[in-house]
Amino acid sequence: MDIDSLAGQAGGWLSSAAGDGDIVISSRARLARNMEGFPFLSRATDDDRKRVVDAVVSAVEQAGFSDMAYVDLAEASSLDRLFLVERHLISKELAGGSGLRGVAFGRDEALSILVNEEDHLRMQALRPGLALEQTYDEVNRLDDSIEKHLAYAFSPRYGYLTACPTNVGTGLRVSLMVHLPALGYMKQIEKVFQAISKIGLAVRGLYGEGTQALGDFYQISNQVTLGRTETDLIDDLARAIPKIVEYEQRTRETWIDEDRNLLEDRVMRALGMLIHARRISSEEMMDHLSAVRMGVNLGVVDRCGLDTLNELFFLTQPAHLQKTEGKKLGPTERDVARAAFIRRRLNGTAP
Amino acid sequence: MDIDSLAGQAGGWLSSAAGDGDIVISSRARLARNMEGFPFLSRATDDDRKRVVDAVVSAVEQAGFSDMAYVDLAEASSLDRLFLVERHLISKELAGGSGLRGVAFGRDEALSILVNEEDHLRMQALRPGLALEQTYDEVNRLDDSIEKHLAYAFSPRYGYLTACPTNVGTGLRVSLMVHLPALGYMKQIEKVFQAISKIGLAVRGLYGEGTQALGDFYQISNQVTLGRTETDLIDDLARAIPKIVEYEQRTRETWIDEDRNLLEDRVMRALGMLIHARRISSEEMMDHLSAVRMGVNLGVVDRCGLDTLNELFFLTQPAHLQKTEGKKLGPTERDVARAAFIRRRLNGTAP
Repeated sequence: MDIDSLAGQAGGWLSSAAGDGDIVISSRARLARNMEGFPFLSRATDDDRKRVVDAVVSAVEQAGFSDMAYVDLAEASSLDRLFLVERHLISKELAGGSGLRGVAFGRDEALSILVNEEDHLRMQALRPGLALEQTYDEVNRLDDSIEKHLAYAFSPRYGYLTACPTNVGTGLRVSLMVHLPALGYMKQIEKVFQAISKIGLAVRGLYGEGTQALGDFYQISNQVTLGRTETDLIDDLARAIPKIVEYEQRTRETWIDEDRNLLEDRVMRALGMLIHARRISSEEMMDHLSAVRMGVNLGVVDRCGLDTLNELFFLTQPAHLQKTEGKKLGPTERDVARAAFIRRRLNGTAP
Repeated sequence: MDIDSLAGQAGGWLSSAAGDGDIVISSRARLARNMEGFPFLSRATDDDRKRVVDAVVSAVEQAGFSDMAYVDLAEASSLDRLFLVERHLISKELAGGSGLRGVAFGRDEALSILVNEEDHLRMQALRPGLALEQTYDEVNRLDDSIEKHLAYAFSPRYGYLTACPTNVGTGLRVSLMVHLPALGYMKQIEKVFQAISKIGLAVRGLYGEGTQALGDFYQISNQVTLGRTETDLIDDLARAIPKIVEYEQRTRETWIDEDRNLLEDRVMRALGMLIHARRISSEEMMDHLSAVRMGVNLGVVDRCGLDTLNELFFLTQPAHLQKTEGKKLGPTERDVARAAFIRRRLNGTAP
């Protein structure tokens, strides 16, 4: 697959087709697996790494996932690696790592397999909206098919063995990307995070572990997998999320009831900045897109739909932008190109 | 004259007809005079005040300024007093003072006479653009006409006697309202002020002594009048101003040459805020109007002309806004009404 062919559109998992894509934007299920007879990656030689890659690529082929393309990340340019991070197809760790490593992913980007990240294999399924069971089913089926052609490291006592103890057991991490602009603006978000951590869930930034929260987007996931069944893990998250969604919705409603004008002011100013800025950073843009997104969901903004905003989220990220422009851009050039791109999309005209 | 009839338009002295109204917005000449045989106002009784008012009103009539209306500020509402400050027809001191006091002004607001402010009479002429000689001539003619019907306190040695020693002599203060957005943005404005004070000129805020600088608008005037002729005072200012104008212009040109996009970003973001905000304070609006004004002057903005901006400067001030809306408004209500008013003017549509 040609990576460049993806550059013009948002990932399939951010389709706005999902009716409940307002607060819960997407669901992800990830399984960590290691191959029997190979050392964990911290102790793997170059040769081990190569044998893992060969075995996985071969297993994917044998399992009949013929639409999956394999990208060799040791060979890929730093721009392509950043591009795949921006599409949530690989982690920052895999992009920034060293040694032979790669990713296989399908045409709609819903399924991907990270090879030689922290574990030999990390399989993930991504879907728009609240779809925990669906993503788990999908990654589970992928796992079953691969397992027929690959021997996993498994202990009858502990379950699947992983490089990091927090993944031992099922190796499953389920996570939801949520958009909580009202809770963010009303300074209620810390309260939510404290409540979440008490029930064994973790909150991470937009691009996963160790990344910053941008534009009120967060990833909520299970923390540990040892001693718990897959169903337990999914249920924990599935039980917590309606409360978070309701809290965000109630905060929006209170805001509208108490001071609709202030909310409109916040939303429309953000739209004004997006339309008028002549240079804008990713971070600032995310903040504005977040406010405008809430505005669209609340019917305050009718200038654009979620489709347009979802596209902007994707296509104005640094690597996407450079692919669209067809050249390397310095930080200021990116900020200028980003502003022009946003203007074209929101005005429907050239800059 | 009905004060309310002025509420719908900018003061005549802010006409954009003046070709050089870009950086030098308006010129003002003011003469301080006191009446012979009356104590200065710090020691004046209510009766003294009344006799001064009567004498001035009578002199204005006898001098043939029949288009001048007299407003009794002791009787006027606080809203009307603020309204007259916003139009630069009276000082904040006269508005906030106590006792019998007032102002007489002509139909185009170019000439006004403050009665019982710091001095018994303060006459001023206001004109758009750089027109120091014209305003001095006008206020001088007004002074000559009044003097025929009123005996001034005058010392052959010191000149005209005034309540504050800094005004003794000619009693003249000439001042220019200037707009220095590039110097402000580039943090060069303090340098200008230091240079100005070294040559005996003073810098004040938008509404005169002790008021804040808003939106990069400043008043530059002579500091002392004792021992100097009227011509000296006008020349001092007339010699300094081309250097300030050139410095502002050169700073704008350098800015454009070095980073046109940054300048456009600043200007267009300001325009975006004006168009999109749903509530906006005077202070924030002034900042944005200042940037957009520079953008219009540099050909970066073509959405509106100086006319529209000049009107906005006037009509969105707190008292003007309340007169336009026809009711008293609290601070937040004003901010909401102000944003709607700006939107109507800049979009040409209802909010």
